[in-house]
Amino acid sequence: MATSETGQLMKNDQSQIQSFKTECEYHLNNELLPFWFDRAKDNNFGGYITHFDKDGLDAGDDEKSMLGQARMIYVFSSAYRHGYGGEQSAEFARHGVDFLLDKMWDDEHKGFYWMTDRAGKVKIDEKILYGHSFAIYSLSEYTLATGDQRGLTYAEKAFDLIQKYCADTHFGGYFEMFSRNWDLKGPGAAGGDRKTLDIHMHLMESFTTLYECSGKEVHRRKLLEVIELIIDKILHPEYRTGIPQFFADWKVAPQIKFDIIWGWDRFTEDGAKGQAEDNTSYGHNVEFAWLLMHALDVLEIPIARYKDVIRRQYDHALADGIDWEYGGVFVEGSHAGGVYDREKEFWQNAEMLIALTQGCLVLDMDTYWPVYQNVHRFVFDKMIHHKIGEWWPLLTRQGEPIWTHMSHNWKINYHTVRSMIETIKRLDKLVRSKE
Amino acid sequence: MATSETGQLMKNDQSQIQSFKTECEYHLNNELLPFWFDRAKDNNFGGYITHFDKDGLDAGDDEKSMLGQARMIYVFSSAYRHGYGGEQSAEFARHGVDFLLDKMWDDEHKGFYWMTDRAGKVKIDEKILYGHSFAIYSLSEYTLATGDQRGLTYAEKAFDLIQKYCADTHFGGYFEMFSRNWDLKGPGAAGGDRKTLDIHMHLMESFTTLYECSGKEVHRRKLLEVIELIIDKILHPEYRTGIPQFFADWKVAPQIKFDIIWGWDRFTEDGAKGQAEDNTSYGHNVEFAWLLMHALDVLEIPIARYKDVIRRQYDHALADGIDWEYGGVFVEGSHAGGVYDREKEFWQNAEMLIALTQGCLVLDMDTYWPVYQNVHRFVFDKMIHHKIGEWWPLLTRQGEPIWTHMSHNWKINYHTVRSMIETIKRLDKLVRSKE
Repeated sequence: MATSETGQLMKNDQSQIQSFKTECEYHLNNELLPFWFDRAKDNNFGGYITHFDKDGLDAGDDEKSMLGQARMIYVFSSAYRHGYGGEQSAEFARHGVDFLLDKMWDDEHKGFYWMTDRAGKVKIDEKILYGHSFAIYSLSEYTLATGDQRGLTYAEKAFDLIQKYCADTHFGGYFEMFSRNWDLKGPGAAGGDRKTLDIHMHLMESFTTLYECSGKEVHRRKLLEVIELIIDKILHPEYRTGIPQFFADWKVAPQIKFDIIWGWDRFTEDGAKGQAEDNTSYGHNVEFAWLLMHALDVLEIPIARYKDVIRRQYDHALADGIDWEYGGVFVEGSHAGGVYDREKEFWQNAEMLIALTQGCLVLDMDTYWPVYQNVHRFVFDKMIHHKIGEWWPLLTRQGEPIWTHMSHNWKINYHTVRSMIETIKRLDKLVRSKE
Repeated sequence: MATSETGQLMKNDQSQIQSFKTECEYHLNNELLPFWFDRAKDNNFGGYITHFDKDGLDAGDDEKSMLGQARMIYVFSSAYRHGYGGEQSAEFARHGVDFLLDKMWDDEHKGFYWMTDRAGKVKIDEKILYGHSFAIYSLSEYTLATGDQRGLTYAEKAFDLIQKYCADTHFGGYFEMFSRNWDLKGPGAAGGDRKTLDIHMHLMESFTTLYECSGKEVHRRKLLEVIELIIDKILHPEYRTGIPQFFADWKVAPQIKFDIIWGWDRFTEDGAKGQAEDNTSYGHNVEFAWLLMHALDVLEIPIARYKDVIRRQYDHALADGIDWEYGGVFVEGSHAGGVYDREKEFWQNAEMLIALTQGCLVLDMDTYWPVYQNVHRFVFDKMIHHKIGEWWPLLTRQGEPIWTHMSHNWKINYHTVRSMIETIKRLDKLVRSKE
């Protein structure tokens, strides 16, 4: 399609890419960021309000999760760093950092509490690695964006804590669930005997930005270790797709629901999963692929060594995960092939947009550009609630809203805003590459 | 021999054991500790003098290694804790701690420098895990003995540093050789790509005493992890004997000499070893066995789970490692059987005495008591330089001194004094068990 023999098509590509980019920019600048600037700042207690109903009204939930606060710090920092939202983005980021450090940091046992109420009173004092990874990610991005060194200082404190308390020096990788004093929690639903793709992928993400900010050898080294660990232990040995849960020794564990959650993975009432041992997420796999390429870029390592693994994430997701009838990305399916869940969740679609533009840039345009158009149209025509500004969290296969809240601690704006910023960046490179 | 049917023999055992114990006590109180009280304290610069020639005279070497200083802190602390040397032991221990913390701690990059001159000026600023393990061991023992909390404070600082900088979060275990700022050193002789039995065994030893002192869950957890790691990765899969060196991924590495050394393992001039890939140390293996039993005791875990592994260390060492012609313990040999080096080094004999009395206590008296008598006689008749007070470092098979210094940074008194304290403790239990 974009070959040198088809000069005419290349010119068409350019204007076509430009029009998608314009659509993303409009959404980001005129719908998405205004949604948050209008309502996110909690002027009474500090930090951010994170629960909004389908009309964008404050849903009233009296809680602030450190995960939600951290993800929003990331969003405003990243927006500022990329030139969106002007000084208001920096101001909003700082406002979140103040609350995170003042109200959520545990001076006695160190680390961040998992949950407070709106006023900052601790509701769940446990130490959860998932949240700490996002604290590292957001606080590093904050320092990169604003120069305020408090971000990096606390990102490094969190990094040091997880090396001390979470790393498993027998089997490698990290344990994930701890009590307030960093004692490892018990097995099963408490999560103390499990290791997950989700957390290790997000450690790769956060160590990338920490290293980008600090330049320190130990941050680089632990980033390389977690990349190799994922390739070696967490990807399916045959299909190279991501396996969600493991025991400490990296034997595959049946996927269970933990007591502390940060998403809406569907389970039966007893916390079991229909296909608990053969389940992979298309959106998670391509998110891993583009985050890996981003890590390699920051590390200044050519992607050649990992190209096969990266390609296989895309191949698997595109073979089964794209809905060519109604558009968008299915939730999850089998490693070997076959879809289990055909609904459409916001974050897999958000990550797919970044992954597909990245694929167009570094793999090949012919394969990924038609898929991008499919997912882009589904997102913009069905998933974005344009009148309000944010995305519906879950749609039927056909595109009718199932869940209707505009925000929750687990949703907020990390996937949506990041998707627009990172997609625009790649669309812009694609346009320029065709000039 | 010591069965209930042979009451007469049991009575004989008791007086025989008592006589060995008396011999050890005499040596410790009248030869060994006085040797050190007379000459170890550096009243000019602080810390300890650690180099003495065959006559016990200061050899003049202008260096103090943090390993040597730490091991001597351990010795005086342990002596004090067990009632030897009175207040002089506590005073000597404190004197060493003052120097270690004032002169060897790196305030900028944290951790302990590897080597200073006598005055405390840094000569080698590298950070070596082996030394840090002994800092943890000795500083924890110091706090247990004296109550001075500086010991535990700095032991925990060292523990935290090695979790951050040394743990390998991909393959498990710890990297060992670092530059001053804790950047991992390069491969080969620099040691940055190697993992060793020696260091992981000593981490088990130091984490045991750290946990005994602190009672903290994270110290217990890392101790359990390193025990399981040794069993799982470092012991020979078939013979269960210790394998000296590995690459990062736990593939066996040919045994090489590192740039930074702490012993006199024999290598050819190009740093190679005759049997570089089939070599195990009888003394190291039984040292591991008794240290493991001590760790389990502190952890309050029954030894049953590890009894087979422990027994195999003893069986292998006793099958080949004991010299029934001239007495004492050979240096090293093959995993499958067969001795490579028939000389007699001080530390393997020291550790064997502890291991054999421990074996008499918890495995069986009939097997280990005759071996104890053999090694005890060799040590007391050939290895101890009674006139001076310390042990010859290396003897011919027949018992003639080859190396003749009484002390060096790598020798000092950790093996010799600990051997007497720990052997007396076990002989005393054996006597009482027969009363």
